[in-house]
Amino acid sequence: MSTAPSTWTRTASYVAAIDIGGTKIAGGLVGADGALHHQVERPTRAGAEDPDQVFAAVAEVVALLADDPRWAGVDRVGVGSAGPVDIAAGTVSPVNIRAWRGFPVVARIRGLPQVAGLPTVLGGDAVAMTAAEHWRGAARGFANALCVVVSTGVGAGLVLDGRVYPGPTGNAGHLGHITVDLDGEPCPCGSRGCLERVASGTAIASWALARGWRPATAGAPGDATFGAAEVAAAARAGDPIATAAFDRAGRALAAGIAATATLVELDVAVLGGGVLRAGELLLDPLRRHLTSYATLPFTRHIAVRAAELGTDAGLIGAAALALES
Amino acid sequence: MSTAPSTWTRTASYVAAIDIGGTKIAGGLVGADGALHHQVERPTRAGAEDPDQVFAAVAEVVALLADDPRWAGVDRVGVGSAGPVDIAAGTVSPVNIRAWRGFPVVARIRGLPQVAGLPTVLGGDAVAMTAAEHWRGAARGFANALCVVVSTGVGAGLVLDGRVYPGPTGNAGHLGHITVDLDGEPCPCGSRGCLERVASGTAIASWALARGWRPATAGAPGDATFGAAEVAAAARAGDPIATAAFDRAGRALAAGIAATATLVELDVAVLGGGVLRAGELLLDPLRRHLTSYATLPFTRHIAVRAAELGTDAGLIGAAALALES
Repeated sequence: MSTAPSTWTRTASYVAAIDIGGTKIAGGLVGADGALHHQVERPTRAGAEDPDQVFAAVAEVVALLADDPRWAGVDRVGVGSAGPVDIAAGTVSPVNIRAWRGFPVVARIRGLPQVAGLPTVLGGDAVAMTAAEHWRGAARGFANALCVVVSTGVGAGLVLDGRVYPGPTGNAGHLGHITVDLDGEPCPCGSRGCLERVASGTAIASWALARGWRPATAGAPGDATFGAAEVAAAARAGDPIATAAFDRAGRALAAGIAATATLVELDVAVLGGGVLRAGELLLDPLRRHLTSYATLPFTRHIAVRAAELGTDAGLIGAAALALES
Repeated sequence: MSTAPSTWTRTASYVAAIDIGGTKIAGGLVGADGALHHQVERPTRAGAEDPDQVFAAVAEVVALLADDPRWAGVDRVGVGSAGPVDIAAGTVSPVNIRAWRGFPVVARIRGLPQVAGLPTVLGGDAVAMTAAEHWRGAARGFANALCVVVSTGVGAGLVLDGRVYPGPTGNAGHLGHITVDLDGEPCPCGSRGCLERVASGTAIASWALARGWRPATAGAPGDATFGAAEVAAAARAGDPIATAAFDRAGRALAAGIAATATLVELDVAVLGGGVLRAGELLLDPLRRHLTSYATLPFTRHIAVRAAELGTDAGLIGAAALALES
């Protein structure tokens, strides 16, 4: 990211970064160079009925961060959150945190005594990952990028004309819910044929199981532990159904990346998330199918890269969003 | 468009607008208020072997415009062209003008004696239509818009965050070539399942003919004159195949508009082009299917409107691009 003011290199300034997920709430102090210091975390009370019980963990994370002497250099706060988010309103409604519906997380964080009204910027988790990869990772130096998180779902964020493009409410880049199959199966989102129903880790495992593939490890079909990792292991051992499941996911991702490039022009697609532990098992068919779907001249040059920042992307990206805004 | 400098209302400034298509090359002088004056045109020698023979008509159009006394107020030139275009290079390669491949239209127009190096801005025709509808038509006042031209093909352009977004090469918004059917039929572009293969006027007529529909007017199946207009007439008379052909096109457009909204967030979709003479025959199923495909909360509010500027959009939009840049 090129937007950090040059004075930042002179003063010891930090961004307090907070990453809100369904399992944990993480915090860290991020320097102007993107280095991540003093990481802390608290479990998310995702099942709590009371929104304040969930927020208590955020307040604890901030308090832990503020114990660090570098907190004196903090002049802004960046927050990445599971979505949906509404960055215009400063609210979040994470699917996996049921007590938070339209929860005013920005106002609540700014109201914490340690934060005391510092500028606080909110973004969705996939947009934060995108900001991180653009600042310090695989999308660095690219003016137009799509960064994709392939996990139990498929999320993504966009960089357009050199800057992260969150859209007016912060939800731009929802690649997992574009229709790639007009007559495809219904999606819980209410639409049908969504990319996520083909390319997520959950979809990869379901498709393989439905075609008779069975994992070598213990467990029963339908067990949530039968994930894309087991399918990947089988594919590496030569199982044709497992191999086909990754090919199909790579094809849907290729069509979705091509559609995005056709709509906004892209230079690079960066792929991260748990399913990318399969590496070339997914990237190889994705690249191959991309040559079939990205055929217009202005879409043919897209680079496909694996994400570089792993699980640090959430905090580094939250900081990047705060620095970019 | 809000970007015309306020001084424009004081001086009698004009944009020389040029619209390059496969049939004709049109010109006009566009005032700062968007009014179109002194329209002229020359036929495109689309079959010419020599690129200069095609350019001669552009030079004639400019000479005709320069005969008008208002030419003295012209301080920039806007060019809309059939695509593909490359606005970074200033070149065009219109599919229907075979002698122009990477033709340096911007440099050639700037080199005309009447233009004498004035700032000259190039855009694709669908992007120009988008700029026109955003400035003076159905997308006015919307910060995020997709303007779609449904004709023998399907083109489109984007407005993001209040401004036309052409993308780095000017080809953003190529809605007709996003894949809406992963296993769909091959498209001449090299991909498959492209929206254009379902929703263009050509596709509407082909689909109906393939299912046994026959027009009441003279002609033979497969005749190019059997277009979407005849299918629309049959649908109005109650023909179920003709009605289904428009429903299917509306559904594909709905899925494509929903995909775009899911990727970049939209407030409005504006539909124009010859097929829109069918009016509600296309817009009604489009709106209905949009409620099925645009299901995420941030996509549910999209307005669907008919374009307002008709065939003037090319020239007004070319001027708008010149004023915005």
